[in-house]
Amino acid sequence: MEVTRSNFKDNLNKVYEAIEESDFLAIDGEFSGISDGPSVSALTNGFDTPEERYQKLKKHSMDFLLFQFGLCTFKYDHTEEKYIMKSFNFYIFPKPFNRSSPDVKFVCQSSSIDFLANQGFDFNKVFRNGIPYLNQEEERQLREQYDEKRSQANGAGSLSYISPNATKCPVTIPEDQKKFIEKVVEQIEDLLKNEENESLELEPCTGLVSEITHLLKKKNLFWPYRIGGVIKKKKLFTWERYIVISKVNEEERKRREQQKQAKEQEELNDAVGFSRVIHAIANSGKLVIGHNMLLDVMHTIHQFYCPLPDVTFFRFNLFSYYFVSRLLDTKLMASTQPFKEIINNTSLAELEKRLKEVPFSSPKVESADGFPSYDTASEQLHEAGYDAYITGLCFISMANFLGSFLSPPKNHVSARSKLIEPFFNKLFLMRVMDIPYLNLEGPDLQPKRDHVLHVTFPKEWKTSDLYQLFSAFGNIQVSWIDDTSAFVSLSKPEQVQIGNLNCSCAYSCVLIMCKVSRP
Amino acid sequence: MEVTRSNFKDNLNKVYEAIEESDFLAIDGEFSGISDGPSVSALTNGFDTPEERYQKLKKHSMDFLLFQFGLCTFKYDHTEEKYIMKSFNFYIFPKPFNRSSPDVKFVCQSSSIDFLANQGFDFNKVFRNGIPYLNQEEERQLREQYDEKRSQANGAGSLSYISPNATKCPVTIPEDQKKFIEKVVEQIEDLLKNEENESLELEPCTGLVSEITHLLKKKNLFWPYRIGGVIKKKKLFTWERYIVISKVNEEERKRREQQKQAKEQEELNDAVGFSRVIHAIANSGKLVIGHNMLLDVMHTIHQFYCPLPDVTFFRFNLFSYYFVSRLLDTKLMASTQPFKEIINNTSLAELEKRLKEVPFSSPKVESADGFPSYDTASEQLHEAGYDAYITGLCFISMANFLGSFLSPPKNHVSARSKLIEPFFNKLFLMRVMDIPYLNLEGPDLQPKRDHVLHVTFPKEWKTSDLYQLFSAFGNIQVSWIDDTSAFVSLSKPEQVQIGNLNCSCAYSCVLIMCKVSRP
Repeated sequence: MEVTRSNFKDNLNKVYEAIEESDFLAIDGEFSGISDGPSVSALTNGFDTPEERYQKLKKHSMDFLLFQFGLCTFKYDHTEEKYIMKSFNFYIFPKPFNRSSPDVKFVCQSSSIDFLANQGFDFNKVFRNGIPYLNQEEERQLREQYDEKRSQANGAGSLSYISPNATKCPVTIPEDQKKFIEKVVEQIEDLLKNEENESLELEPCTGLVSEITHLLKKKNLFWPYRIGGVIKKKKLFTWERYIVISKVNEEERKRREQQKQAKEQEELNDAVGFSRVIHAIANSGKLVIGHNMLLDVMHTIHQFYCPLPDVTFFRFNLFSYYFVSRLLDTKLMASTQPFKEIINNTSLAELEKRLKEVPFSSPKVESADGFPSYDTASEQLHEAGYDAYITGLCFISMANFLGSFLSPPKNHVSARSKLIEPFFNKLFLMRVMDIPYLNLEGPDLQPKRDHVLHVTFPKEWKTSDLYQLFSAFGNIQVSWIDDTSAFVSLSKPEQVQIGNLNCSCAYSCVLIMCKVSRP
Repeated sequence: MEVTRSNFKDNLNKVYEAIEESDFLAIDGEFSGISDGPSVSALTNGFDTPEERYQKLKKHSMDFLLFQFGLCTFKYDHTEEKYIMKSFNFYIFPKPFNRSSPDVKFVCQSSSIDFLANQGFDFNKVFRNGIPYLNQEEERQLREQYDEKRSQANGAGSLSYISPNATKCPVTIPEDQKKFIEKVVEQIEDLLKNEENESLELEPCTGLVSEITHLLKKKNLFWPYRIGGVIKKKKLFTWERYIVISKVNEEERKRREQQKQAKEQEELNDAVGFSRVIHAIANSGKLVIGHNMLLDVMHTIHQFYCPLPDVTFFRFNLFSYYFVSRLLDTKLMASTQPFKEIINNTSLAELEKRLKEVPFSSPKVESADGFPSYDTASEQLHEAGYDAYITGLCFISMANFLGSFLSPPKNHVSARSKLIEPFFNKLFLMRVMDIPYLNLEGPDLQPKRDHVLHVTFPKEWKTSDLYQLFSAFGNIQVSWIDDTSAFVSLSKPEQVQIGNLNCSCAYSCVLIMCKVSRP
């Protein structure tokens, strides 16, 4: 189901219901860019530690906009032995909701935009009709603005007609107008005592509203009158301006107050917008599945909660403060035993194809009534809703495969099964050679890196030059750090004996190499 | 006429022709944002000097993308006494053209995007089908890449089948293969001497191509042979790999070379893309009209030529290095005598309406055959092509009005008339109180600023607090600098006597005021 600003409110309860009833959720995000850094290699070095990778993504990837969010909920029907899925494809845009609201700036990367354009991505839906959102701090500020307005109104009659400056600076009443104003205040006091009269027209005067209010406040006469704005009356050739004071019926006042509060609450909800979906996911406690989901999780927190914390806080407080209770990354799952040996390519499209074949089997999944179904034959990859759907399918196939190892074997392994717990809360790390994941529940793996050399060289060098230099050592892997340095890992750690390397290259260059022992 | 990547090449000659035949051009740009600064007041203070304003725009506005460019050409038909106009609305996007091309990142400001969305702007046309472009440095680099590839090819036979590493590092031939390779080189020499044979299959071998080439190079035998790649032949149960050397017919080689060069030139032209239109405008020497065009001019230089220089260079070298020979800003024109007194609102839409009424008259303008006409009744404001068109209309009306002062009066004043020269090369400055324009041909105006105070105050202060503080001085104008300071200009310079100001405010604040004498 496609959800834009136009139909968001009408469908929000459907979204809540789908989340609440589900066994697990799958999510996916599309962004306006990936890397704002100097180069891709600077963003993803093969020997990054999980902390380094997190810091790099935090620094170079958060200025982009998450502008499409896919959510697919899966509920198992035990009688029919099939999953019922509901898929939502949300378009998201930080449309300013009033003059004082944040004017978000975000970066677009032309290669990413071009990639999405080639997939038929509809940018008009994002920019014309994206659902707005607020992060926690923005929501707090807006709530405070409303509270402040309300307490002003409660404290000093319906001050809505009085200029907002009035309360900013204590009012000093000009000497020549003191008498006039004191008389006005007396008139108002009389009005309030006298049950017959409902309103009062002051003598022609302009302004002075704040001075009058000030004096009434001092006399603790906030209520129940309303300074009803200035009216104009034609007098011969000119217009004269009157201020009208009218009594306010207490019940009427309450009704209006409640109406206003309900309207304010609705405005606030509209402004919080898509963040409400994220809050619902977070509060549901459901297992959340994603494919290669580190960036999705980081963007979700950054955009809908708060600027990203340091990695320790991210790692250990993700659950209590932010997103969800349990995450599962299907790319990490597919790269881990017992899947690692039988799955060659873990890209989402290839994984989905592979999992249709033995020893795996396609799960029985149907879309719920009223929800469109996706056809996996006509691929709609890189639409977030579709990608979330496929990710869910992959998870089910892999989870069920784990059931085949049980005795007796089980065809259906639920999202609550102990069998999948080993895959919880480990986020796949792209192109890191020897640390497969960022662990959200404990310290990261610490592989031996005895066979890894840190090499510096002239900036003209290309990967081929390094291959040539190390040609005597068989297979090597090169991980660029910047223009003039890289990690080179040799296939056999025992080969590493600095000083024995023969540089057959004619460059009169200085090569600095050292062993990298700790990640 | 709408011009996207799909129809750009087909229509480029039409664009060139329209520019070439025109009497003057009008331009307009739409951007993905306006201000990346902390606030609008930080970007536009009412007492900015032209230099300061230029620096602020350079710093805070150039990360946005100019993604729609309107060009409207006007040609006067003396017989029919009317203008013939051709309007082009270009969609522009820095689509990467290959893997090594620049991956441009640009900023979007949600308020600007939202504004354009509300005008019905088509973002899909920009992002899916925008015309690419290169700035001068990128064009130079790409040209160099092509030149380098070509000189490699010319220097060492058709090296296209040889791995690019081959030339990077001088080749050392392994001892055990020297004999084999020397024999191969002899075979090739024989082939070239012998007129009967056209090609030669080497003995089964893998690799060694770079070693062979190296040796042939040493013998100055670059041409006329081609190392024709490796072919495989089935031999019993295995495949054997042969390298084929074939003679190259000189004519055939030249033909292929020319074909390749033409293709390269076309690729280069495609990559330079929309910049070619800007170059054509610049080289035409035509008068270029814009409405409030400072940002348009700055973006055009920044995006299609080079990063913006400092203001002195911008001011005096705009003509020789960059854009055009003469610019005219209709907003500045409308704000200057004799128009100033009879035109209240100089926004483009209001100006266009005003210039339809006496003492002005609507010019006779028709769209050329094959070009769509705009209807000024159904406004399509903020489409760049339409805004350029309207800008041109405004110019014609105002220029013709100047003709009414001549004796005898003239109905038509051409773009070459001396009457409009006073308006040349002065770019309107938005919201600057006393310096109407940035002068591109000389020093800027230096107004007296004796009546302007620089005031500092607590950051809670609002404009109303300043009005209150200065209430004794009648009309004041406040120009915010940042949260805690502003320029305050009094209406009567003689009032300024620092120290005599009575602060009636209850804030226990420190007010620092000083006179601002020089802009």
